[in-house]
Amino acid sequence: MYLAKIFVTHKKSILDPQGEAIKNALHRLDYEAVENVSQGKYFETTLNCDSEDKAKQITDSICDSLLANPNMETYRFEIEKVGD
Amino acid sequence: MYLAKIFVTHKKSILDPQGEAIKNALHRLDYEAVENVSQGKYFETTLNCDSEDKAKQITDSICDSLLANPNMETYRFEIEKVGD
Repeated sequence: MYLAKIFVTHKKSILDPQGEAIKNALHRLDYEAVENVSQGKYFETTLNCDSEDKAKQITDSICDSLLANPNMETYRFEIEKVGD
Repeated sequence: MYLAKIFVTHKKSILDPQGEAIKNALHRLDYEAVENVSQGKYFETTLNCDSEDKAKQITDSICDSLLANPNMETYRFEIEKVGD
């Protein structure tokens, strides 16, 4: 069994209004040290497969086909072996 | 300058309908190896402060006061030094 930790974030070229809104809210709460904020999605998925390579292949595929919008988002992930 | 990578996820006791919906969608796309899916939020924020301890303190505070809903969510973060 493998655990995939998937990070989906906006492409640099894409405006991140959510991140801007959070930054402004934090400044209104007097967190002046905050320079930039970006918000993305974080997924954890357990995969019942027999090798790390297979887990990477499945994770790539589920990101491309469902979890990340290729026009606006980019993704990266980490794979960990968990249990048998 | 410090970069905080923040992961906000549902508490274990809280139902994650979004994660369930994604799991079902992936099964319909024939990704049978997928066992569980949980979706959370991922933030990156740059902090203009002078120590890692200060960066941790600010990050804790912005999570408690804005980024994570204490009733339903839990958070963890990683701090990296970036630039001067």
